[in-house]
Amino acid sequence: MKSFSYYNPVRILFGCKQKYIANILKADGHSKILLVYGKDSVKKSGLYDEILKLLKDADIKFIEHSGVSSNPTLLHAREGVQKTKGVTAILAVGGGSVIDESKAIAAAAASECDVWELYEGKEPTDALDLYVILTISATGSEMNSGTVLTNEETKEKLSFNSPLVYPKVSIINPALTLTLPKEYLIYSAVDIITHVAEVYFTAEEHPKIQNRFCENIIKSVIKTTDELLKNPDNINARGEFALCATWALNNLTSLGVGEYSFPNHMIEHSLSAIYNVPHGAGLAVVLPAWLKWFYKNTKNPQVKRFAKKIFNEKDAKEGINAFEKWLQKIGAPTTLKELGIANGDIEKIAENVDFVSHRWGLKQKYPYESIKKILKLMK
Amino acid sequence: MKSFSYYNPVRILFGCKQKYIANILKADGHSKILLVYGKDSVKKSGLYDEILKLLKDADIKFIEHSGVSSNPTLLHAREGVQKTKGVTAILAVGGGSVIDESKAIAAAAASECDVWELYEGKEPTDALDLYVILTISATGSEMNSGTVLTNEETKEKLSFNSPLVYPKVSIINPALTLTLPKEYLIYSAVDIITHVAEVYFTAEEHPKIQNRFCENIIKSVIKTTDELLKNPDNINARGEFALCATWALNNLTSLGVGEYSFPNHMIEHSLSAIYNVPHGAGLAVVLPAWLKWFYKNTKNPQVKRFAKKIFNEKDAKEGINAFEKWLQKIGAPTTLKELGIANGDIEKIAENVDFVSHRWGLKQKYPYESIKKILKLMK
Repeated sequence: MKSFSYYNPVRILFGCKQKYIANILKADGHSKILLVYGKDSVKKSGLYDEILKLLKDADIKFIEHSGVSSNPTLLHAREGVQKTKGVTAILAVGGGSVIDESKAIAAAAASECDVWELYEGKEPTDALDLYVILTISATGSEMNSGTVLTNEETKEKLSFNSPLVYPKVSIINPALTLTLPKEYLIYSAVDIITHVAEVYFTAEEHPKIQNRFCENIIKSVIKTTDELLKNPDNINARGEFALCATWALNNLTSLGVGEYSFPNHMIEHSLSAIYNVPHGAGLAVVLPAWLKWFYKNTKNPQVKRFAKKIFNEKDAKEGINAFEKWLQKIGAPTTLKELGIANGDIEKIAENVDFVSHRWGLKQKYPYESIKKILKLMK
Repeated sequence: MKSFSYYNPVRILFGCKQKYIANILKADGHSKILLVYGKDSVKKSGLYDEILKLLKDADIKFIEHSGVSSNPTLLHAREGVQKTKGVTAILAVGGGSVIDESKAIAAAAASECDVWELYEGKEPTDALDLYVILTISATGSEMNSGTVLTNEETKEKLSFNSPLVYPKVSIINPALTLTLPKEYLIYSAVDIITHVAEVYFTAEEHPKIQNRFCENIIKSVIKTTDELLKNPDNINARGEFALCATWALNNLTSLGVGEYSFPNHMIEHSLSAIYNVPHGAGLAVVLPAWLKWFYKNTKNPQVKRFAKKIFNEKDAKEGINAFEKWLQKIGAPTTLKELGIANGDIEKIAENVDFVSHRWGLKQKYPYESIKKILKLMK
């Protein structure tokens, strides 16, 4: 086991608790907030009206910042910062994209710097308090200190981490995910599995307790996704799925494993930066291809263990095939073609990955030629 | 899945980091602290001298409060409170007993009330900041908000919980446990398993992800204990064992399971309140007996699952037998006789359990006659 430091002060309220949000904001001394959300779904579901009533009843002033896209963008985040005069907190109502953009606004507004500087390495000095009402369980952003943003001009999708942007309170109500379109459930499942897989496959060390913890989450995601595709109203499965999403990226999977990296996210971020494909859809294409390349080049025993523990296959390659078949079964894309990306674009993508890979600290491990090989496995 | 609220702001530094403690205290603004520890072991190991040097070099004044016993007592905690004038923080150097007594002192000193009032239900209003250097991994107190104390006069061993007594920072250095006497390793193993077992068997609901999480910890404890009895210097096993201890009682096992209770701890606390037996030794006697009684009376399917998942036994009773045999194999007591408690004392113990059971909210579930039946299974 490697040394580690763990600190995660997010308060999670899991269950039907969104009605408490106004009281919580008030108790924490906030009288004017920025309300951040995406597009129409929170209005259609009635959640928007519910929150507005709660805020008004509690006499909390708010400025709206809507229209966050599923790959949140720098220009939109900058617009959000412009609206924060007199605001002491942000209420993010949505999934990972809304939370990530809210983190960007929270840090840039309080640190008095440009949003993109933070993604380029500048440490934030302060952040507005962040509160979350989660409507899509996938990215784990509700219980971590990371945020991802796309710079539309430079086609860079970058991230930063700071303990200052941990949400104060995240309300996770699985009932809010009951109306989620089927494809978002599928993309979310792939995102969660990939978060676990990055640690599981790339870590320096693999303490057994951490291996089993990772396998537990992957198994639960597979099981609950299968259940929810049959019966979307299964609230228990929604709950377990939501818990998996939160646990998959709140640092618990990585305790004691030493260094690890996010190669699949690095490659996928280029896909979504260039083609604006949904993150989970991109990952479904990247992960099986990366796994094939990774096993061929490293013979890492974790791949064989994955095959055995998750799909009861003796052989590593059979395990990867079983995973790919499961992705196809649930309706996830597994080829670039299905994402609408032409074969001829591989060099363009590889160049983008190569361009950002130094920011991920993965330049040496993933040189241009390796990236191209991985991309070729995706067709 | 049931609703839950989760909040755990403890900062864990895992690895060889005790040298940072003085810097951390200083950065947090503390210039005078109470140094709480047990008996000779921290002096023998050299840890005491190391810490004194660190504190002196950082110009942090300290008052010593030593002699915490393995079942910490009210009188000793009250003496600690008397020493807190001008003190803003407590540094607990030891295992669960030292941390628990430190929590008692921290809360009573800052809330200006008697220590025992807190264990009788009074809410603390404040607490001194608490810092921990852990030397025995067992109780999980380094990452939770609970504390247990024994009132020697009334023979009551009670607990309280308050978010105010979460440690600010806990340094867990598995290397410090290398010199732990063998019997403490064994008692610690039983304590960790019982923490998990209480939730695993008594919870209202059993989400699969939580079941597997609990089984993961129990399996790791069994495996690492077996390894450490053969080779006490296995630092990887020490690390995994330490992680199990922390995870077993920091609320993670209980997310979404609804109500659960601590019947084994309730019964054992009477054993140690009356006979001052080590907590883990008492639990080794109580848990198999309770499991037999529990399965006979409830046929709860979790017992069968435990048998299958942990010991690969089809039958619930065979699973309990396998567990009892494992306890005997590692050298844990499994009878009252081995604890030096006479058969004739059963009524006296049952009366004590009956006396405190209302405080545990378990009076109805565990009436006097049931307690007697469980105790009779311990001979």
